[in-house]
Parts: sequence; C-alpha cells; structure tokens
Amino acid sequence: MDTVTVNLGTRSYPIHIGSGVLTALGQLLNQQNFPAGRIGVVTDTHVGKHYREHVTHTLGASGFDPVFIEIPAGEEHKNLTWLAFLYDKLVEGRLERTSPLLALGGGVIGDLTGFAAATFQRGVPFIQVPTTLLAQVDASVGGKTAVNHPAGKNLIGAFYQPRMVAIDVETLKTLPRREFVAGIAEVIKYGVILSPELFLLLEEELSVLLDLNPFLLTCIVKTCCQLKALVVEEDETERDYRAILNFGHTLGHAIESTTDYECFLHGEAVALGMVFAARLSQLRGLCRSTTSERVCRLIKQAGLPVDIPTNLAEERLRKGIETDKKVAGGKVKFVCIEDIGKTRFEFLSAKEIAEHL
Amino acid sequence: MDTVTVNLGTRSYPIHIGSGVLTALGQLLNQQNFPAGRIGVVTDTHVGKHYREHVTHTLGASGFDPVFIEIPAGEEHKNLTWLAFLYDKLVEGRLERTSPLLALGGGVIGDLTGFAAATFQRGVPFIQVPTTLLAQVDASVGGKTAVNHPAGKNLIGAFYQPRMVAIDVETLKTLPRREFVAGIAEVIKYGVILSPELFLLLEEELSVLLDLNPFLLTCIVKTCCQLKALVVEEDETERDYRAILNFGHTLGHAIESTTDYECFLHGEAVALGMVFAARLSQLRGLCRSTTSERVCRLIKQAGLPVDIPTNLAEERLRKGIETDKKVAGGKVKFVCIEDIGKTRFEFLSAKEIAEHL
Repeated sequence: MDTVTVNLGTRSYPIHIGSGVLTALGQLLNQQNFPAGRIGVVTDTHVGKHYREHVTHTLGASGFDPVFIEIPAGEEHKNLTWLAFLYDKLVEGRLERTSPLLALGGGVIGDLTGFAAATFQRGVPFIQVPTTLLAQVDASVGGKTAVNHPAGKNLIGAFYQPRMVAIDVETLKTLPRREFVAGIAEVIKYGVILSPELFLLLEEELSVLLDLNPFLLTCIVKTCCQLKALVVEEDETERDYRAILNFGHTLGHAIESTTDYECFLHGEAVALGMVFAARLSQLRGLCRSTTSERVCRLIKQAGLPVDIPTNLAEERLRKGIETDKKVAGGKVKFVCIEDIGKTRFEFLSAKEIAEHL
Repeated sequence: MDTVTVNLGTRSYPIHIGSGVLTALGQLLNQQNFPAGRIGVVTDTHVGKHYREHVTHTLGASGFDPVFIEIPAGEEHKNLTWLAFLYDKLVEGRLERTSPLLALGGGVIGDLTGFAAATFQRGVPFIQVPTTLLAQVDASVGGKTAVNHPAGKNLIGAFYQPRMVAIDVETLKTLPRREFVAGIAEVIKYGVILSPELFLLLEEELSVLLDLNPFLLTCIVKTCCQLKALVVEEDETERDYRAILNFGHTLGHAIESTTDYECFLHGEAVALGMVFAARLSQLRGLCRSTTSERVCRLIKQAGLPVDIPTNLAEERLRKGIETDKKVAGGKVKFVCIEDIGKTRFEFLSAKEIAEHL
C-alpha cells in the first residue's frame, strides 16, 4: 500500500492507495484515531450491491458501527432533494458531530456526501473511498463538494477537505468497462498538463493498464493524486493556477450540457475537449503538430472518442462555452498546451474558440 | 462611525458601526473594492418594508444594481425549503461568482443568507447588515451560518466569514421593543463572561441604553463585537475556548426547545439561562452570592425574565439539556462564573444540572 500526503496545513490528510485497501479500511481508521462507534457510510445501489457486506465486516471488526445510507445510482440524484434525504438519514441514524461520514462510490456519491459532511452540524469528519477511476484520480484531491441545480452542474457546494482517502484499485474490477476507460481520460490529462513522464508511461503501458494490472494502477493513481496535490496545495480555492486542471473541460462541459449529459460520460466529453484543445493550440502556433498528434493518438488508443459528432451544431456548442461558469468579462480562460507537460492560458471569446470547431 | 477589525488572517474583515451607516452603505462597498454591478440583497418582509427603498437608493448611487429577495419574516422560514427558494432567486437574478450577497435583517436572514453565500457556486462574497440588536452584537462575529432541520436548530450550516459587516444603530428604532430588550441579554452576557467594565457600564447607564441613545449604542455594540472577536480569533471553529459564549445557553436552549420556540425570544431564554447559571455557580461554591445577585439584578432591570415558569417541568428541561448538541460522553460543558468577567467550565450531567432547577 502506498500513501500520498496532501499538504494543506491543519487540513492535511493522507491518501492510501493499493490492492486490498478496502479490507484494511477499519484498521486505517483506527490508525488515524477516528473514535470507534457509529460511522455513516453513504453509497449507491450499484456499489452497495458489491461492497456493502465486505465494508460492514471490515468496519465492524475494528469497532465501528456503520449506518449505511443508499442513494439510487446516477447523476440525476446529485441534487438538493437527495441531500435533504441524506440529512434526514444522518439524524435518524443519530450521527454525532464527531461521527465520521464515509463516501463509498464514484463522483456522485463523493460530491453529495462531501457536501453533506461539510454542512451537517457545520461540518463532520469526511472520509472518501472512491470506487471509480475518475473519482480516484480526480475527486480524491481538491476538496470540491457539490450538488447540481437545474440551472447548472455543481452550482451549490463547498470546499471541504476529507480527513482521509482510501483507494482500493481492486474495486475497478467491478466498474463497467466504459466507465473505466472514461476515467483514463483524466489520467491522460494529468500527463498532458503536468508530466511528460506519466504521458510516456501511458503510451508505453496502455495495454497493461487496460488489463487492470493492480501494480500499474496503483502507480498511476498515486502519480495522478500527487500531481493534483501539487496544484491544489498551491491554489486551494482556484484563484488562478488551479485552472490548468480545466484542460479539455471548456469544450467538454459544453458538449455535456449540449447533449443534456445523455450521450457522453464526463471522461469521454473531456477526451473530445482535449483533442480539440491540442489542435487549437497547434493551429494558434503554440505547440508543434507532433505534440498535438501524440495527445490525439493516445486518447484514441485508450478507446476514447476523438471526433465530435457532426450532429452537434457549432452554434449550440458556442452557446455552451459562453455559459461556462469560468467566463469573466466575456473571455474564457482557455487552457492550451505548448508541449507535453507545459500549459499556457489563452483568454479567448466563445466565438474565437468555436472558430476552430 | 467606528470600525472593528476581526483578525482571521486572509479572512479578516471590518465591522463598521454607527448612526447613518445604512446611508453610507454603497460608499463602504466601494471602499472595500466590491465591483460595481449586480448585488443580491436578502431581507424579510418586515425589514424590507422599512429599508428596501433607502437601500436601493444608496446602493444605486454607488453603481450597484441590487436584486432584492424577500423571505417571509420568522424563524420557521430558516429551513431547506427557503434555502432552495433563495438559490432559485440567485440563479434567476443572474448573480455571478463575484457578485456579493448581502443580508439585511436579523438573525434568521443573516444565518440563511450566510449559508446560501457559503454554498452558492462554492462560496460568494458575503456582507452582513444586521438590523436587530441580537444580530449586531452576536451574529456579526463568528462566521456561523445555518438553517434549521425538524430534528434541531442550526443542524445544517457552515462556518463562513463575511467580507464586511455594516451596523447602523438607527435601525434599532424600528425594531419591536421586546426584541430590542431580548438583544440586551446577549450584551449582558459579554459583560458577565469577559468584561467587568462593560458590566459596570450597563449597570450605570441602563436607562440611557433603553432610550436608544445612538452614541451609547454604538459604544456598546462596538465593545461586544470586539469582545467576541477576541474569542473567535482564538478559536474560530469552537474546539474549546469559544464555548464560553454558551454562557446561559445550555438551559436557554432547553427552555426554547421545551416550549417549541413559541413562548420566549432567544434573548429571553438566555436571560433565564444566565440567572440559572449564576445561581448554580454560587450554589457550587464557585462565586460569591454578591456576584450572582449582580447578574440577576441587571437582567431584571433590563426588563428581561428571571423566573422560569413553574409549568415548565424539571423532567422536560432535563431531557432538553440532554439532547444539547454540545453533549459529549454524557456530560455538558457547562459555563459557570467565578466573578464578573471570569468563567470556568464544569463538566456536568443533565441530572446534576437539573438538580439546581
């Protein structure tokens, strides 16, 4: 088992990564001095089916008394209604101020549970046990919690750091293949924006990764957590630098919202956005064509989409970019690349971006 | 106009206090470099009636475009339903990430708006303009925001600091007399727990205070804000020392919940709780009888209740104390006094406390 520490002063916390971490969960909580007794465990119907029994056993063996709360699977449940349901269950389960709240699942469960932890009794200890590749490499670091509002994704939320993250790469074996591949998009993103070494590793070992080799998975998830931690440690609340993490996300978000989140998984939309951002960087003379081509090739080899469907009108995508919540003064802070591992911000209007579609 | 600075590192902020502060509100926002343009102003039906026009004018004259949002007056509206209403209005009013959200009203408006500000778009700039004495001396400092849940008051909330507080003591002239007097209870509390000088001033100048003398009001509100700031600066998230602010609140909260919040205003219940805590301190040999008597006398002279109604059964009050959210390991951290300006914590069971009823 490997451990990455996210250094945020008094809010620093460890991320434990490896095979079999779920079995060690109770012990890890003991080591972190969480008081034995009641613990809230929030999961969804899919993940609960696979791991509820196992987690109940490992927590019970270490003196914890888990109160399971199940939310129906799916992004459409990440809203104020299910948040209120969650608060009711926390009250019913007599969770106290010192009782930890653990999120066992993907991004939806992590975001919803994290926001509940941030706000129940003005904040209770929060533990993340992400079970999707996307959540493991992306949601483990950063402290972003949220629910959706009809007017926008993640429109209501808080920055709230977990006390501990436990990542068991074995859980990826029960993850639907399409979701696993979508998670690889964010892994590629970390390579492109921050690490030529990670990018090269992915180019060379992609087939081993796609075979779910636990050793390689542990290494890659750890690297992504470390890279994101460096960014977040420098700019916790996204004043400036942290925006590099939006590489591929400007168009990605526009594609997701234009298609009502029904056609593409988040990672798939980001893959399309990264291909676009790489090409835009090349067309604007910021990077060589070989760089842009390497990015596109790796994304394609991973089994991710690289071509924006022709039925997605340029006009609608441009509107989608315009309503991005990161727009300021009519310009988007668009993340371009100069090389693998080297980014730069370009302040572009939605029109200037859409020209390259 | 006086200014108190609350020192919380990067989250430090000024509290402006005086007569006519409301008229200067736009200018104060300009001075603090809030960007001109849209600003959300949340108020209740009562306060809106008195000040909406005036505030619209003063903000407009300084380049702001206020979006007013009115909540029906009353604690029963400080809940998740009205919070969702507030989010909807923020979206409708096209409030952005950088648009400030201003709370114009008493504790209910401040708590609800503060929680919305803490969570809308993961946090927007928050400005407090408290218009009740209680909110001016108590809610201006501390960063506690919350909504109620059927299972408990303030059960859902966040610590979130305002960027500025503007207190116009003239607004107290439109406050119902009973509410003004209830606010004095918290003023007395600051004297008892932290300042023999403030306590003496209140003993000597009570009638001038009850006449709403603006000079004395400014001085007293400023002193209370300074005293609370010293406590909060030392212990922002109530790990330990900040609990002294709960003086009178253990029984106060039990009285409020036992009577379904229908018989006593918060300050009135706290007044009863302070009389009780002073007597308990004396009975346990922690303070002299003259100290306890001074506390009771001042509370009575202010026009606040000092006798717990005989129809409030000891049994029910004991249960109310037991469910206090500050109970840990079956013991309440009860705030006793040793002298005016000097407190000490006693760890007591609900039974030990109720014995003295």
